[in-house]
Amino acid sequence: MATDNALTAEQILSTAEDVLRRFGPAKATVVDIARALGVSHGSVYRHFPSKAALREAVTQRWLDRAHDELAAIAAEPGPAAERLHRWLATLFAAKRQKALEDPELFATYMVLVGEVSGTVEEHVDTLVAQIRQIVEDGVRRGEFRDAPAGPVARSVFLATAHFHDPAHAAEWSRPAARDDFEALWSLLLEGLRGR
Amino acid sequence: MATDNALTAEQILSTAEDVLRRFGPAKATVVDIARALGVSHGSVYRHFPSKAALREAVTQRWLDRAHDELAAIAAEPGPAAERLHRWLATLFAAKRQKALEDPELFATYMVLVGEVSGTVEEHVDTLVAQIRQIVEDGVRRGEFRDAPAGPVARSVFLATAHFHDPAHAAEWSRPAARDDFEALWSLLLEGLRGR
Repeated sequence: MATDNALTAEQILSTAEDVLRRFGPAKATVVDIARALGVSHGSVYRHFPSKAALREAVTQRWLDRAHDELAAIAAEPGPAAERLHRWLATLFAAKRQKALEDPELFATYMVLVGEVSGTVEEHVDTLVAQIRQIVEDGVRRGEFRDAPAGPVARSVFLATAHFHDPAHAAEWSRPAARDDFEALWSLLLEGLRGR
Repeated sequence: MATDNALTAEQILSTAEDVLRRFGPAKATVVDIARALGVSHGSVYRHFPSKAALREAVTQRWLDRAHDELAAIAAEPGPAAERLHRWLATLFAAKRQKALEDPELFATYMVLVGEVSGTVEEHVDTLVAQIRQIVEDGVRRGEFRDAPAGPVARSVFLATAHFHDPAHAAEWSRPAARDDFEALWSLLLEGLRGR
């Protein structure tokens, strides 16, 4: 149990995730979350002005969970092709892990994600910007052909949707998923290198 | 109203589609379909041995609706790059039209498609085989690099999922969808050509 004074936003978000998983996104209330924390609902509202704001923050936190590792890969020095492959493989692994290890929480977040299209768009923009960073490095290093990095980065993101968009989660446990990923990567790498 | 004698499978499938759209996939029964046709449900069962078989046939017919045009493009002579671009654009246009012009029927079919994973797999195999036919022509003509056509064809199909997989239907009306498609096509074409 948290005391009102020590209550942090992170504690609220973590408990909110538990409560959402337990009660489902349709039924979980701020009062349920406050009760699980052993505080008044006013204490929760001091951190998050509304139930909608709290749900959005929980979703954002979930979406961003693999971001730090991905951002680090994007910022690394070294060959761009290897980094982009590792970046995509890391994203795929993170998504697959979320979907397969805790399907109930994943389903909960699918509902929440449907409520906050703005948050999802920001999340996608952040990921595409990281791909772009690697693509620009690749062009600078002479690994990739010189093409507008913005559209190329977005194309790489769209082309790999099968391996990171939750809409495809049901296909991630297929035995062929890894071979499919590598075959697609080979095609994209050829496309990035160009003639 | 069809007489029992003249009743064709196509009439049943077409009426079944209307009934499914009207009553929804959870409620539509073979009796409803027979009533709409003005025949006994026995007449329907003479063509389709079970409700499940009928639902599967209706779904198959819907999935295949754009197939003839696509198969024709795959079988044409002429430059492979242009044909593959046209094949993908035709598939995207057909899916987009289904989703946007009759969203209710589209939603109905999304439920049916979820019931018949085998039918969907066959549908995907047929489409990938058509891409493969064009890719092999491209390699023969010296347009595309010589790479295993099977995995390459599957990669092209997966890479363009954003533009044909119903899971992405909500994104097809975005103004940027066409630009996204062309940018992705450029990247894939470079990949097919190789160095």
